[in-house]
Amino acid sequence: MLEIDILAVVPGLLEGPFSHSILQRAADKNLLKVRVIDLRTFGIGTYHQIDDNAFGGGAGMVLMAQPLADAIRKLQAEGAYDEIIYLTPDGTTLNQSLANKLSLRSRLLLICGHYKGIDERIRQKFVTMEISIGDYVLSGGELAAAVLVDAIGRLIPGVLNDGSSALTDSFQDDMLAPPVYTRPADWEGMKVPDILLSGHEAKIEEWRYQQSLQRTMTRRPDILKDEEGI
Amino acid sequence: MLEIDILAVVPGLLEGPFSHSILQRAADKNLLKVRVIDLRTFGIGTYHQIDDNAFGGGAGMVLMAQPLADAIRKLQAEGAYDEIIYLTPDGTTLNQSLANKLSLRSRLLLICGHYKGIDERIRQKFVTMEISIGDYVLSGGELAAAVLVDAIGRLIPGVLNDGSSALTDSFQDDMLAPPVYTRPADWEGMKVPDILLSGHEAKIEEWRYQQSLQRTMTRRPDILKDEEGI
Repeated sequence: MLEIDILAVVPGLLEGPFSHSILQRAADKNLLKVRVIDLRTFGIGTYHQIDDNAFGGGAGMVLMAQPLADAIRKLQAEGAYDEIIYLTPDGTTLNQSLANKLSLRSRLLLICGHYKGIDERIRQKFVTMEISIGDYVLSGGELAAAVLVDAIGRLIPGVLNDGSSALTDSFQDDMLAPPVYTRPADWEGMKVPDILLSGHEAKIEEWRYQQSLQRTMTRRPDILKDEEGI
Repeated sequence: MLEIDILAVVPGLLEGPFSHSILQRAADKNLLKVRVIDLRTFGIGTYHQIDDNAFGGGAGMVLMAQPLADAIRKLQAEGAYDEIIYLTPDGTTLNQSLANKLSLRSRLLLICGHYKGIDERIRQKFVTMEISIGDYVLSGGELAAAVLVDAIGRLIPGVLNDGSSALTDSFQDDMLAPPVYTRPADWEGMKVPDILLSGHEAKIEEWRYQQSLQRTMTRRPDILKDEEGI
């Protein structure tokens, strides 16, 4: 069982992702428990303030240290976290290997930034891991958290119906997946490669491997392991 | 005005993302119009079938060509798309520069894969651009589409309240953003750097530039442009 708590500024952004499809199935099977906590409930004063202008001036608001610290400490009191993860464009770039690793943890806290980000002192004091889902900026960390939970959640053993399904995904062997086809074999004059209709398992595997290799060499030579060297 | 249509297998995954925060504001201002289309309404037969086993065997289902083609053609009849984008782990990796480019288009169709992906022939026949949001696998393309729409949507001029806000984000100058701080100046004994409290604009800018540079050199030297060489 993996428990993931998400500290969010716009919890509404996370309404859809966890109540459908694979993550819902993971929750039904008691393999994954996701909880979204609204940072604003830890806001300061009558207006539950959570952000303020950046010191030094400039556009954009910054999430204040105190509400974040109060929330983190209250959640920590319920049980220790394996990692306190801040989703931020300047974090370590998420990849399949990191997703694999995190799927084996038992309790994670994800902190979603918003606007210009969170007060640096929270990063220094509480955060144990900083993750970016890619080299682009989002309006907040919520969608990044949703992506991280989805990438991790489907890797928990038992979540996918078919045990071998995740193993044949892109990146699992440092290669992109081969092309896939389904019925009909002839669609508007476009035919499925004969080999896939041959029923010859070994040859099909070899074809898929070659297609994966070719596609990876053409599109993403950077992720390819040096097969000769290993 | 940017119109984005999303062809989805699990439209429920997209319930939250577009009805909150910045994207809602973009819609209210008539700068962005996002429409989610359920692929199943183009399904075949009584059960509205949209997927089938992969030719050649193996785990995981493949989205069939016909329902996708029917949906794409019906949507195209309403107006041409600048790009028909398939979200897939083996596509071009999304970055801020690609998001900038797409934010200037006027009509986009995003196709969300699911399970093992879509029939290769649809990629060959209709898709003009393939995009991956990162080197990891998701349970479907829906969250990837949400991320793409968010990354693009906030860059449309007029969407963010403050015109200069997006310009100081990470990646806009091929550098990570500097640390940010807000009140109080002394929080639990942790102090904000003096320079940020000095009121000296030029010195603050210089500090931020140095912090950005240092952070980028430490964390992501790969994205740094050769400043000397330009």
